[in-house]
Amino acid sequence: MQTIRVDTPSAKYDVVTGGGLIGSLAPRIQRLAGKLPRRVFVLTSPEIWALWGNAFLKSFSEPPVTLFLPAGEKHKTMQSVDRLLRQIVAAGGDRGSMLIAFGGGIVGDVGGFLAAIFMRGIRYVQVPTTFLAQVDSSVGGKTGVNLPEGKNLVGSFHHPVAVFADIDVLGTLPDRELRSGLMESIKAGIIRDRALLRFMEEHADAVLGRDPKALEKVIAASMRMKASVVNRDERENGLRMILNLGHTVGHAIEQATRYKALLHGEAVGWGMIAALYVAHRRKSITGAQAARLENLIHLYGPLPTLKLRPAKLIAATGADKKNIGGVRRFVLPIGIGDAGVIEDLETSELQAAVGYMLSQAREPRAQ
Amino acid sequence: MQTIRVDTPSAKYDVVTGGGLIGSLAPRIQRLAGKLPRRVFVLTSPEIWALWGNAFLKSFSEPPVTLFLPAGEKHKTMQSVDRLLRQIVAAGGDRGSMLIAFGGGIVGDVGGFLAAIFMRGIRYVQVPTTFLAQVDSSVGGKTGVNLPEGKNLVGSFHHPVAVFADIDVLGTLPDRELRSGLMESIKAGIIRDRALLRFMEEHADAVLGRDPKALEKVIAASMRMKASVVNRDERENGLRMILNLGHTVGHAIEQATRYKALLHGEAVGWGMIAALYVAHRRKSITGAQAARLENLIHLYGPLPTLKLRPAKLIAATGADKKNIGGVRRFVLPIGIGDAGVIEDLETSELQAAVGYMLSQAREPRAQ
Repeated sequence: MQTIRVDTPSAKYDVVTGGGLIGSLAPRIQRLAGKLPRRVFVLTSPEIWALWGNAFLKSFSEPPVTLFLPAGEKHKTMQSVDRLLRQIVAAGGDRGSMLIAFGGGIVGDVGGFLAAIFMRGIRYVQVPTTFLAQVDSSVGGKTGVNLPEGKNLVGSFHHPVAVFADIDVLGTLPDRELRSGLMESIKAGIIRDRALLRFMEEHADAVLGRDPKALEKVIAASMRMKASVVNRDERENGLRMILNLGHTVGHAIEQATRYKALLHGEAVGWGMIAALYVAHRRKSITGAQAARLENLIHLYGPLPTLKLRPAKLIAATGADKKNIGGVRRFVLPIGIGDAGVIEDLETSELQAAVGYMLSQAREPRAQ
Repeated sequence: MQTIRVDTPSAKYDVVTGGGLIGSLAPRIQRLAGKLPRRVFVLTSPEIWALWGNAFLKSFSEPPVTLFLPAGEKHKTMQSVDRLLRQIVAAGGDRGSMLIAFGGGIVGDVGGFLAAIFMRGIRYVQVPTTFLAQVDSSVGGKTGVNLPEGKNLVGSFHHPVAVFADIDVLGTLPDRELRSGLMESIKAGIIRDRALLRFMEEHADAVLGRDPKALEKVIAASMRMKASVVNRDERENGLRMILNLGHTVGHAIEQATRYKALLHGEAVGWGMIAALYVAHRRKSITGAQAARLENLIHLYGPLPTLKLRPAKLIAATGADKKNIGGVRRFVLPIGIGDAGVIEDLETSELQAAVGYMLSQAREPRAQ
């Protein structure tokens, strides 16, 4: 078991990863956040609850009120938020209540947002059940939902009081979701952690084979990177921007495919390949480094093929929310283990990068 | 013109009151909050915009994008928020955009909430146009909307970057709304400012006659009280609770009359009369003080008559959001100029206070 500390101006809390956490949540939450209140809510998906509900309930003397969010990005909406808020009121929620978000990234984002805006903010705990949510979205206090016009356009910064990432629940995670989540760990390595990258190169079989020790090592390193960046830039004014490596093109792919064809990590994987291309062209990384990182991304693939018009993808990046006042911000790796943000990306560079990426994405890659 | 400083752990900003502010907003905002961004949005009501839109636009070299919220509590909903967020996206809003809430308390609460959750928070300016919004809701960063189950059950703490309370716009405010708003000034006096109370007793004619000097004095004193309480307790963990004097019963009256029969300040006026009754019974104020304060409330009346069953009203206080974990919190004046929160209010005391209040409220008061 490993514990990582998040320490920002507005919140300090522990992120715990290891095995056997789900069955002992109640005492663990009490240790970190004090006595449980009269009303505890758990937001989860029907699928997760069917698999892990009994284990979850084991440590609670009084069972929390269960709220359900059906799986899928299409339920990450203001309408779901409205419905769930009303259910919380109907079940007697008040300012002292606590919410536990028990599920993947969508459950975590919606649960955090509910906690942020119900009665102007109640406490919540993240218990992420996918690899992606464990290494990425559960840490850092970003919460929110989509609008029909784009992803994560609505939300709040609202930190949990604790995060518990249980390795055991990954046992029931589909293989494709594990591989997708690992793209964010590769990103963590590229921007901040060479040792993590090397470990992932050398132990791909153990990681993909879900060896608990290997998974814990990758998850803890990824969370530690995320926490260290969030600690230094809570509100994404500067440094935190580098976490968006691969996300400008990644979000554009998701939007252009209506969030249906790819998992988030898969889109980020392709987005990182586009970013590596720009970085290499700008001599921010060498050709050898670009090739090495590209190979690592494909090692944790396969990434799904894409049949998209480049122009459509370029247009979709224009709506990216990293743009402030029309300036396009783009994250580039600097060597291996560092990254920076540029504001002078030329459309021609983006076109070339997207063209390169799409040429790779047209046909399945020979494994 | 008077400037009051709000200075909390999370935000520092100026609250400005005086005449002629609406026509010079753009340079004033720039002085306090820096250069205006590419996209400025103004949320307003059709009525306010018809009266003051031209004056508002005068100082802007590029006109802000206008968003409308129809008047009335029934539009203070998640559905309005969803619609307005989508309009902001459609008009090119981004993380650097700024929103100006130009209207009464509902426009301010909804506008602040939009600014709190659009792209996880953009900057906004409060330009309150009702007396109530000027002295109360525009200061302190509370934002939010209602659910069908209750008022202000959803929201955020999100401070504006500046507040401009223009006395001139009160010229078009209906008399009943002015009187209603003045109830919050009376509240301010009761809990923190004896001098304000005396001024309101001695200059009721000037205040109700909208003498600009008298209005500015009452508004500035009320805002100063609000700011000083918010400065010491930003998140309503303790002291800020005293701002709820009269609001436990006041909110219950609003809920029991479905927010239709009374203005907020009128309900608070009746709520304060109930609170004075409890305070007197508990010897927290003398009989003479209770009578003096009751007279002042009626001096700024008339408060509308109420025909409500006491049991219905008592039940409605049970849903009050000041209850944490089932403990009922209730604010009582302590003498004149101070107040405290009790947690041991007996149902019998509440019944007696509500009975006393309703006996006064049954028939119009002889003026």
